[in-house]
This record gives sequence, C-alpha cells and structure tokens, in this order.
Amino acid sequence: MQITGPVREVLSWYDGERPGVKANLARMLMHGLTGGSGRLLILPVDQGFEHGPAVSFAPNPAGYDPRYHFELAIEAGVSALAAPLGFLTVGADRYAGAVPLILKANCANGLGSIKDEAITATVRDALELGCSAIGYTIYPGSDRQYEMFEEVRAGAAEAKAHGLAVVIWAYPRGGSLSHEGETAIDVVAYGAQIAAQLGAHIIKVKPPTDRIETAQAKSAYEAPGCDLSTLKSRVSHVLEAAFGKRRLVVFSGGPAKDIDAVYAEITSIAAGGGHGSIVGRNTFQRPRAEALAMLRRIAAIHVAAGSAGSQP
Amino acid sequence: MQITGPVREVLSWYDGERPGVKANLARMLMHGLTGGSGRLLILPVDQGFEHGPAVSFAPNPAGYDPRYHFELAIEAGVSALAAPLGFLTVGADRYAGAVPLILKANCANGLGSIKDEAITATVRDALELGCSAIGYTIYPGSDRQYEMFEEVRAGAAEAKAHGLAVVIWAYPRGGSLSHEGETAIDVVAYGAQIAAQLGAHIIKVKPPTDRIETAQAKSAYEAPGCDLSTLKSRVSHVLEAAFGKRRLVVFSGGPAKDIDAVYAEITSIAAGGGHGSIVGRNTFQRPRAEALAMLRRIAAIHVAAGSAGSQP
Amino acid sequence: MQITGPVREVLSWYDGERPGVKANLARMLMHGLTGGSGRLLILPVDQGFEHGPAVSFAPNPAGYDPRYHFELAIEAGVSALAAPLGFLTVGADRYAGAVPLILKANCANGLGSIKDEAITATVRDALELGCSAIGYTIYPGSDRQYEMFEEVRAGAAEAKAHGLAVVIWAYPRGGSLSHEGETAIDVVAYGAQIAAQLGAHIIKVKPPTDRIETAQAKSAYEAPGCDLSTLKSRVSHVLEAAFGKRRLVVFSGGPAKDIDAVYAEITSIAAGGGHGSIVGRNTFQRPRAEALAMLRRIAAIHVAAGSAGSQP
Amino acid sequence: MQITGPVREVLSWYDGERPGVKANLARMLMHGLTGGSGRLLILPVDQGFEHGPAVSFAPNPAGYDPRYHFELAIEAGVSALAAPLGFLTVGADRYAGAVPLILKANCANGLGSIKDEAITATVRDALELGCSAIGYTIYPGSDRQYEMFEEVRAGAAEAKAHGLAVVIWAYPRGGSLSHEGETAIDVVAYGAQIAAQLGAHIIKVKPPTDRIETAQAKSAYEAPGCDLSTLKSRVSHVLEAAFGKRRLVVFSGGPAKDIDAVYAEITSIAAGGGHGSIVGRNTFQRPRAEALAMLRRIAAIHVAAGSAGSQP
Amino acid sequence: MQITGPVREVLSWYDGERPGVKANLARMLMHGLTGGSGRLLILPVDQGFEHGPAVSFAPNPAGYDPRYHFELAIEAGVSALAAPLGFLTVGADRYAGAVPLILKANCANGLGSIKDEAITATVRDALELGCSAIGYTIYPGSDRQYEMFEEVRAGAAEAKAHGLAVVIWAYPRGGSLSHEGETAIDVVAYGAQIAAQLGAHIIKVKPPTDRIETAQAKSAYEAPGCDLSTLKSRVSHVLEAAFGKRRLVVFSGGPAKDIDAVYAEITSIAAGGGHGSIVGRNTFQRPRAEALAMLRRIAAIHVAAGSAGSQP
Repeated sequence: MQITGPVREVLSWYDGERPGVKANLARMLMHGLTGGSGRLLILPVDQGFEHGPAVSFAPNPAGYDPRYHFELAIEAGVSALAAPLGFLTVGADRYAGAVPLILKANCANGLGSIKDEAITATVRDALELGCSAIGYTIYPGSDRQYEMFEEVRAGAAEAKAHGLAVVIWAYPRGGSLSHEGETAIDVVAYGAQIAAQLGAHIIKVKPPTDRIETAQAKSAYEAPGCDLSTLKSRVSHVLEAAFGKRRLVVFSGGPAKDIDAVYAEITSIAAGGGHGSIVGRNTFQRPRAEALAMLRRIAAIHVAAGSAGSQP
Repeated sequence: MQITGPVREVLSWYDGERPGVKANLARMLMHGLTGGSGRLLILPVDQGFEHGPAVSFAPNPAGYDPRYHFELAIEAGVSALAAPLGFLTVGADRYAGAVPLILKANCANGLGSIKDEAITATVRDALELGCSAIGYTIYPGSDRQYEMFEEVRAGAAEAKAHGLAVVIWAYPRGGSLSHEGETAIDVVAYGAQIAAQLGAHIIKVKPPTDRIETAQAKSAYEAPGCDLSTLKSRVSHVLEAAFGKRRLVVFSGGPAKDIDAVYAEITSIAAGGGHGSIVGRNTFQRPRAEALAMLRRIAAIHVAAGSAGSQP
Repeated sequence: MQITGPVREVLSWYDGERPGVKANLARMLMHGLTGGSGRLLILPVDQGFEHGPAVSFAPNPAGYDPRYHFELAIEAGVSALAAPLGFLTVGADRYAGAVPLILKANCANGLGSIKDEAITATVRDALELGCSAIGYTIYPGSDRQYEMFEEVRAGAAEAKAHGLAVVIWAYPRGGSLSHEGETAIDVVAYGAQIAAQLGAHIIKVKPPTDRIETAQAKSAYEAPGCDLSTLKSRVSHVLEAAFGKRRLVVFSGGPAKDIDAVYAEITSIAAGGGHGSIVGRNTFQRPRAEALAMLRRIAAIHVAAGSAGSQP
Repeated sequence: MQITGPVREVLSWYDGERPGVKANLARMLMHGLTGGSGRLLILPVDQGFEHGPAVSFAPNPAGYDPRYHFELAIEAGVSALAAPLGFLTVGADRYAGAVPLILKANCANGLGSIKDEAITATVRDALELGCSAIGYTIYPGSDRQYEMFEEVRAGAAEAKAHGLAVVIWAYPRGGSLSHEGETAIDVVAYGAQIAAQLGAHIIKVKPPTDRIETAQAKSAYEAPGCDLSTLKSRVSHVLEAAFGKRRLVVFSGGPAKDIDAVYAEITSIAAGGGHGSIVGRNTFQRPRAEALAMLRRIAAIHVAAGSAGSQP
Repeated sequence: MQITGPVREVLSWYDGERPGVKANLARMLMHGLTGGSGRLLILPVDQGFEHGPAVSFAPNPAGYDPRYHFELAIEAGVSALAAPLGFLTVGADRYAGAVPLILKANCANGLGSIKDEAITATVRDALELGCSAIGYTIYPGSDRQYEMFEEVRAGAAEAKAHGLAVVIWAYPRGGSLSHEGETAIDVVAYGAQIAAQLGAHIIKVKPPTDRIETAQAKSAYEAPGCDLSTLKSRVSHVLEAAFGKRRLVVFSGGPAKDIDAVYAEITSIAAGGGHGSIVGRNTFQRPRAEALAMLRRIAAIHVAAGSAGSQP
C-alpha cells in the first residue's frame, strides 16, 4: 500500500515515535472512506457503559448487539471502531482484520457521583484483540485528575512500547468549572493541550462554544488576530493548542440532534482544519441505512475539506 | 461427552475466548438437571459472610456446616455451587469433581456501612480448589465502584488467562440511587451492561421491577415496541442489555418467600429467556427433602422453557 | 509421636489443607498440658503494644522482659505463645523449639482513634523465627474492615503456602455496632463466621453475652431449639457459626478479674465445647507461681471437658 | 572538551555522586552562552500544561508549536530546555543533541483545586529522549507534600542510578502558608533546604521577598550579621540554605514584566551569587528577536557576575 | 578490636539477630568517646528538614554546610552522625569511614499540618553511603500511625536482611494526646514499647515529665514500688518499657537551653541507666569549640555513669 502525501505529512508530526506506532496510525489513516486524506472518521460505542444500554440503544434496538456496530463500521468504512473491552471481545475474533479497533481502556457510568473512571482494560488486552490503538478519558479539573493522568501516562507508555497508538478523550469537568465551562473555548483548548502533553497521538474533544471560562484566558484572547467568533476559528484555535496543529484532533458529535445541524457543524469543523469526527449516537441510533448514508456524507465533508486545502 | 446443540449455541456467543474458558462454561452448562439445555441452576452460599450465620442458617441448622451445601448441590444436581474461600475449602477436597464450583472472590458483610467489598480470594485459590469459575460482586453507582471495577477487571483477566470462567454479581447501589431504584428495570439492565463490558461470561442480577429510576431511561423507554409491563418482558430487556442476549444472565431468588411465589417468578424469568436461576436462601433454609424437590422443580421450569423455544 | 484420636479428629476438619499446615496444627495440639486432648491453651502477650507497657506489666514487673513470658509459657506447658515481632525476636533464638510460637502480625495501640491495625510482621518473619502459626486481628464492622480483610487474606494465603497455620482474632467493632454489641452473641458468632470464611484455622473470640445486637438476628434466634440463655449454649452456637463446629475456636479471658470468676467462665466455655482458652493478663499479671497454678487448672478444665464428651 | 575551573568547582560539590550524573551536570554547565562560567540559563516551557495554552502562547502564537522553543533554545544558546513529556517528544528526535534537555516529570494545571501534581513521565522516558536531567515540582506545606516527596525520592533515585541529574522546583504552598508567604524569605529558603535534602542537584526557587512568614524564623533572623534587606542578600541566604552554597540554585523570572525590571532583578540575583536564571514567559512571549536578545543579555549578566567574583 | 564487656553485654540482648546487624551495633558502641562503655552519643542533624534552615543554623552559620557536622562529629568522637539523605550525600564520600552514619530515612517539615512523614531514603541508599544504621520516626497516636508503622516495618526488615541496625525515633502525637501529654511518662514509655515491638535496636525518646496522660496508666502506676517522681526513676521506667531494659534507649536534648540545665538533665538520664544521648541543636548551635567541649562532657557523664554501675 502506498502511503499518500497527506498521511505522510501527518506521520511526520510524530517523528521520533516508534515505527510500530506510526504503522498503526497509518492503518487508521489509510482505512475506509477517509483513507489517505489525512482525516479520520471514528465510530465510538462506549455509550452502553457511559450512559446506559436503553438510553443508548433503545432508539435502534439492533445496537444492543455489539456485532451490529462492527458491521456498521465495516460497511460504512470508518477509520476505526472504538469500544470498551467486553464489547470488543464479542466481535474481535469474528471480524478480525476487517476494521481498525481502538480499545477504550477506562470507563465511567451515569449511576455514581464520583468524577473518575475505572481502568477496565489493559495494553495486553488491546494486543490480544488486535487493536491499533488504546484510548483513555481524562477529566482535567476534577479532584481525581492527577490520578487519572498517572493511569493514562502508564498506559500510554506501555502502549507505545508495544507499537499501539494512543487516543485521549479530553473532557474537562469538576473543580471550579461550570457546566457550560466544560465546552468553553479556553477550556476545550486547555484539555487538548493537556492530552498532547500526556502523549496522545489522537485527541478527542467536544466542539467548543464561544464562552470563555477563565479570567486569565479572557485577557489572553484579547491579543490581536485572535478571532473566536466562529466554530471554524475556534476549531483552528483548538488545533493550535495541540502543539501548533501537530497532533490529530477529532471532534465529537455530542447528543443526537437534527441531521442538518450535524452536517453544518461538521462542515465548520472540517473547514477549521479539524482532523475528523468521532460520532456515535448521531449515527447508530438511526436506522442502519440512514446511519450508513450519514457516515458516508460526514466522511465526504472531511475528504472535501482536506482536498480544498483546509489542511491544518 | 457430546456437547448439545443449545450449549454449542451458548458457547458460540463467546467466540474468540480461550478454549479453557469455554470448557469450563461447558462443564457447568452440561452438568446436572439443566445439563445440555443451555440453562443454569446455581446454588450460592455466601450468605453466612454477607448476612451473618444465624440469619442464614438458623432456619435449617444443618446448613452451618459447609458440607451440607456440597451434598445438597450434588444430590440436587445443580450446575454449580458458589461460595467464598473458607467455605469452599471445607469441601473442595472431600467432594472433588462432584459438582462444578464457583469461587466467590470478594465479600462484604452486614456490620459495616461502607459500600464496598473485600477481595477475599484469588485466581490461584480457585485453581487450587479445582473451580470452574471465579465470581465478583460489583456495586455500580457506589462511591467505590471504580475501585471495584478495577479489582474485578484484574481478577477477570487473570482468571481467563488460566481458563476460568468469570461470573459477575451486578448489584447497583449507592450514589444517587434510591433503595427501590436498585431493582428498577433501567438500573438492573444498566448493571447487566456494565458486567458484560467488564468481561463477565455469566451475569447475576435481581429480578427487575417495573420502576424506572433515571430520567434519561424514562424517555428512552418511550420508544415504540418497548413493553416493560411484565416480568417476562423485563427479563427479555435485561438480556438485550447484556450484549443483545449474547451473555448468560441468571436471576436471583432474593429473600425466602412463599414457595408458589418463587415458582411463579421463575416461570416468568424462564419465559423471558432468562438463562437460569441462582437461588440460595429460598432452598437451603428449608428442610433437605423440600429443598431438593424445589431445586428439581426450578430446573424443570428452565429446561421446559428452553425446549419450548423461549431461547433468547 | 503418636497423634491422638481427638487431635486426628480435629485435623480431619482441615482435609485438603497442606500437610505442613496440619503438622503445625498438630504441633500445637500435641504440646503441653492440653496436648492430645483436642483443646488448646494459648498465652497471648501483645498487651504491651495494644494497651501499653505499664498497664500490662506494672502489676508484675517481671513481665516487662519478654523472656519472662517465654519461660512462663514453657514451664506452664501452654499450647503456644502468641506475641508481636519485636517481642518474639527477644526469645525465639534462646528458647528455640521449647514452645510453639504464634507471630501476631498486625497490631494497634490505645493512643489513636482510627479503628485499624498496622501490619507489623510478615510470613517470612514467622518462618525465620520458627513459628507454627501467624495471627491477625480483624475488626468486622469498622470503616477499614475490607482493607483489613484483604491484608489478612494475603497474609493467610502466603502463610499456608509455607506450611504455617493461621489464627484470626475476630473483634467486631465500629460501623453501627454499640460498645456492648461488640460481645453480643449474634455479633461474636458473625465474627467467627467471617474469620472462618477468610481461612482461619484457629479463631479467637471473646465470650459472648446474651445481648442480641441486630434486628435480623433477633428474628433468626426465635427459631425453635435456639437457646442462648447460658454461656455454655452461646459458646456452642459460636462453634456452629464456625462452619458447623469444624474450626478451632478459642475464647479470651478478657480483663483481669476474680480468679473464681475466671474458672467459672472457662468451665462454661469448656462445657459448651469451646476448643480452649487464650488468657494473658489474667495470668501474667499475677505472681509467677500463681500464674503457673492458674494455667494448669485452666488446662485441666479443658482436658476434663474434652474427656467428658463435650467434644463439639 | 576542557572542563573549566568554575565548572570543576561546581562538580566538586557533588563528590561521591555517580560519574554519569556529573557528566550530565557538566553537559549543561559547559553548554551555550553561560558555558564554563559555573552559571546556568534554563528555558522552561511547561506553562501550556501548568497555566493553559492561550495564556502561555497567545502573546506570541509561534510558541504553540514546541519546535519553536527548541529552536529558540538552540539559537539563544541556553544551558538547557525544560519541558513535559509530550512537548519534548515533538522535538527530541529532530533536534537530537542540539541542546541539553530536562524532562519535567510531574505537572499540574490551573483547572483543579487539589494542590498536587501528577507524575507524567518516567526516568525511562528521559533516557529514551536523550535528556540530561529529570525535573520535579514539590509543594512543601501542602496536604499532599509527603506523597510528592516520596514520588520525587523514587524518581530521583532511579534517575541517579541511570546517570541523570535531578532538578527540583521548590514551590512551598498550602498548609498554614499565606499566599504572600509562598515567596517569603524564610519559606523560600526552607523550600531550597528540602529540595537539597531530597537529593536535588539543581534547585529552582522564586526570588524571595523580605517578608518573614513563620514566627520561629523571625527570631532566628535576629541573629547578628543576618541582613535580609536586599534581594542580593536574600539570594545569598537562600544559597546558604542549600547546603552552605554547595547546590546549584537557579531563580525563576515569574510572570512577564517590564524588561528593565527583569534585568534589574537578575542583576541582583547574580550579585547575590545565584547560579542562574530559569526564564520562560518573560522571553518566549516576546517576538523571537527580542527574546533572543533578552536571553543573551541575561546570560551576560550571569557570566559577568561570575567573573566579577560573586561566586558563591 | 577487642569488644569490651559492656558492649558484649549489650550485644547479648540481641541474640538471634543477624551477625551483620550486631557488627554494626558494635561499630557504633565501640566508636569514639563513649566507645566500649555500652553507652552512645549520637549527633543528629535533621533539623534543617524538620524545622527549617535558618531556625537550625542561623545561630552558628557554619552549620549550613553539612561538612561542618561531619567534622564536628569526627573531631568530637561521637558514636554516630544521623542525618537525611541529601545531607549525608554531601560528606559520605569525603569522610568515608571516619564516623559511623545513621541514615534518617523519613522526614517531615514545619510547613504543613498533616501529622506524617515522607519516606525520603531507602535501605539501598544507606548501603551505598556506607551507613551502619537506618532510622525512622514514628508518631504513635496520629491518624497515620499505622501507615507509618507499616513503612517502618518494611524498611526495618530490609535493613536487617542487609546487616544494618535500626533506630526508631518514637514521638507520640496526635489522636487524643494533649501537647503536654506527648512527653508524659506513660506516653514516652508506651512509645518506647512500640518502637521495640516494631523491631528497633536503638530507640530515641524525649526525656519524660512526671505527667501521666492516660487514665489506665494512672491506676497502673499506683502499684507498689512504682516511683516516678525523679527524672532518674522515669528514665529507668522507660528502659523497663523497652523489653525490660534489653533495648538501647537514648534520650534527646530537646530545644537549646542553658548549658548547666543540659548537663543536669543528662546526669539524671545517665544515672537512670539511659543508654546515651542524642543531642543536636544544643551543641551545633554553639561555636565549634564550645560544642566540642560540650559533647566531650556529655560523653564523660555517660561513661562515668556506666562505670559507676548504673548499667541498666
């Protein structure tokens, strides 16, 4: 397989990294609808654990079965399927090699009140299941953030030593952050920075709003040339915060919403140079054909933006 | 021994799992009264630890001696006997090979107020005692849930690497859950999902009520075709929540009650596709002959339901 | 040495246990005044650590020197001497082989307010000092009970793997327990059950009162044939709670008291089938000759009860 | 390379230390503008993690890209570049060997309220990246100070065993300290002492004010000959507190300020015998040419002070 | 070197201990001014860490440099110099073999409010630096006492296995203890007992007052023949509490005070059989010549008392 120019460009951001890690990044970047474009489209299915099974799958009950999502991911041609250990265990053997896998190695749920996640899988699990990457959530700001960082650091180091790529879901929350502040532009950018510092190859954030949460950031954003009025410009700023646009940053879709709103949002993200989308409920909660069409259209938006020169 | 069709079907849910684990699952599924039917009947005797010796055994004092339960389990022909380390130690040698054993590896008691369990046994203990599986309780929602998940994850991984099956008792409690909420249908289903995600081969839950505890679940359950009015339908929903009915889910009997109520409940569970029952106090607190008859009748209900096509 | 019938009977309760463990149990059961009777008389000297040196030894200052207790234990002919690491270190070499030793491996003191104990010795220490057993205290009910259980579990597993017997001091306290409740019959029985479940070969409890602490136990004790009005009957119930009288249960003497009261209490314990006494302050706080006479009389009570058929 | 007299003098403070550690200290002390003078000029770039990306880099957006700081450090000729793991990973390969590196191995952020840092890198990371030293922050006085000390102790021991030098950022805070007290002369001196006791080769402190925070220190400072009225004299006192001027102590620049104020402060520090400066925001937040000029001037101040005889 | 009678007598208290440990005890007991007398004079210099540099060294600024204390210890001829890791690192190589060293392996400071210490050095450090012993502080009574005991136990076991002697600083504090109670006779004696139980070879306590802190001790001290009215008699009682005078117990000097008061106190301690003094601030805060004279006089007091027959 010939690695394309945009992918070679992305890989160059990771110089000094182990070849095995680059190979796994290339595997995801070269796979499926966005393959070769330097953009990613990831299907995440950890909502059963994080939000509950009925909340996640009742709208489209086929989704209770993990195999459904493997097949959706394969048929749609996403860059990777991301899910917790138990879920991946169901399909890893049956669909071995058919789609790159990201093992989501820590998980929380909606029943408790402690802002933390449990380590629910290991690098060894990821290797046994044939995954390309391992993923962790961090909650910058929470009272347990430092313990979370230490768990992620240990996992990331072991993953890299075994040639796996590392994905970090950066979700600031807790501490002095307001609920709205969790998606404020300064906070999202800060989360991306921390994920990059912890060694993430791919960073997952939520689309940032134009709210500015912290006083220090307010004065920093008064610098000339700092325009945060559009989602496109905010996405570009978040990419800057991830080592000057030298780390892959993908954006979530959030709760299911009107389909046109989804496309509009993703178009802005792609125009801002966002390296892709990671969309779950917005797709798998719709009927299969609709979900497939939607994933293809999202991929097309990213590929078009890439070709149109909105490379970061 | 010829593995029957229903058991082969169950084993197919675990493809990719280690052969040793499948062999131990088969050992329990092929053993005793429900052997070959794809259903399970488990005798759990951890109540001495969890509720106290007199509360558990005074109604039938023969039960103070762990050997009594080994003999009950063997004579009745249950799929497996589940108990803590000290208890299994008493009979594992004397009754070696006579009944599959599940080592309950974490335990709590009724004297304290912390919602947690202690790890009281290891995978090595299970192997030395000749067990087929290791079991853990989790309390999704409690302030210590993530530490519990991490202990279970570690134990489960080690168990699987040594060919043992993993059983998880999913008992949501604590956090923002009300006492009634612990058996609400959405909460029981969520517990089953989490157990599956943590890698359980067999999941133990309580029979769900028609209460809905969380706001998000309420709106999810308004989806068309979602009927939760009967225990049968709720059992079916819990099975869906366990990876689309691809994990063994067994239901507890709860506190001792009127014998006809027990049979009625189990009949509904079996009709809903429940993979079996795990009943302790309802049987061993009665005189031996009565308990034997009762276990046989419960087994018969499950076998009949299996043959009648209520396979999940 | 010919192992006597009563001791062979006791050893049969531990079938499946490692031969080295049985050998060490036999060593204590065959040693000294109660040797061969199936009963035990243990001299525990951890009071310097647990209550303070002056409180423990000022009444008989010879006891400040650990050697005094070795000599008392040897001359009296007790089954074993139990003490913390530092204490045993003083005499283990000088009196090597003269009396079986139990290393008390966790300790607390009276100066602090946290209901916990520190691990103060290891299995390796016990082996180096030539001990026959290792001992741990647990506080069922306390906020740290589960951490204590986990420490004891780990120590007990390692001890057994090296052929050492395991003694557990079961002292329920904390949580919702009242001070009087700590010696209530239901609570003492529950403590004995937990110790057995954690793998104790020998369980040490306090003599139970006729108080019933928990509501569930009250209703359980209303079962027919459940008489708890005498110490003898309560002792018998505690033995039932220890796996149907298949674990050695010894009873403490508590604070120093009138000598006739001590003998009366021990006579009741022996009549109830109690497997022996573990008495410290009641003996070593008296002058040496008096203590020796007292230990011999206690031993005689147990031996006589054993011969009289009050075998459990 | 001929090691100069001033550097040999500094190395003599560390006699008994492993040769590899001395070699790495020499590497930093012989490198760049201050090379050979016995003084250090370090560029620290952990502000993205500690304060946030926009707050740190918006004034000079080129700084979002870690490569910018590598190039600034190389072109200016600083003694070393200090940064967290993710940041160093970006340039360690591309600029291998061009400038000594210090891996900042623990990090905090401005979003949470817990006074602690997370371990975000290991000695192995430092070795893989070709670093000369590893660095840790401690918060003497905070509720987690002892855990931090233990982490640093472990890291420092491992670092030295692998020939790496150890840098400690001593930032007293928390406990009974007032905010102003964090830079009080007694507190800064105490922080330097603790860092030295923990095994630091290089200690980083903030310039001390003339405030005295603790009552005991007030009376100690009434000793004859103890003059703390000038920054120069306070710097000299801090050096005394670091093992009688036998440990390298460098001073931070703090928040960006008027450029003349910076030079004046550094001149006092150098006159007091301070072993160098560690300045980040004051330089990299200015345009590149200005930053380069500034770093060169700071280096010149230190070199001149060294030659003028204000060697400690 | 011929081991003297008094030292052989002391070594006999530790029979069963490893020869390497006895050799290191002998090294300290045979060294310097008190060499061969069975008494010890230890110079402890951890005050920079525990109380702060200026508070400790401003009265005699030469003491900021660790080398000063090595030279003082060597010239005076003390039995050993005790100090934290960083401090010992400065002189261990330069003064190798000139004076026995005790590595103080845990440390606290005066800035925080948590009653705990950090482990700041390891047995391996002590071995690398050529120490004869390792030392730990414990705070019996504090909320973290059990964790401290466990750390000390682990360190002591490793130390002994490598032939190092173990020194414990027993400083009861916290819990229900009043400030005055920390030096009450019952509390100091209790601290000595706990240190002995944890395996200390040498125990360091503060001179006890005639206060009795706990109710139980009050009644115990009413025993006939129990006179605690003089410091001499209280010292003798503390020695009793340390295994009947079979552990070395040395007494601190406390805060700097009038020199005659110091001598008077030490004379009482020596008369009571105290095995030596451990004096820091009272000596090193005075001019060198004065300190030397003082250390020699203290040594002479102990040697004279030993010869006069006040051997314990």
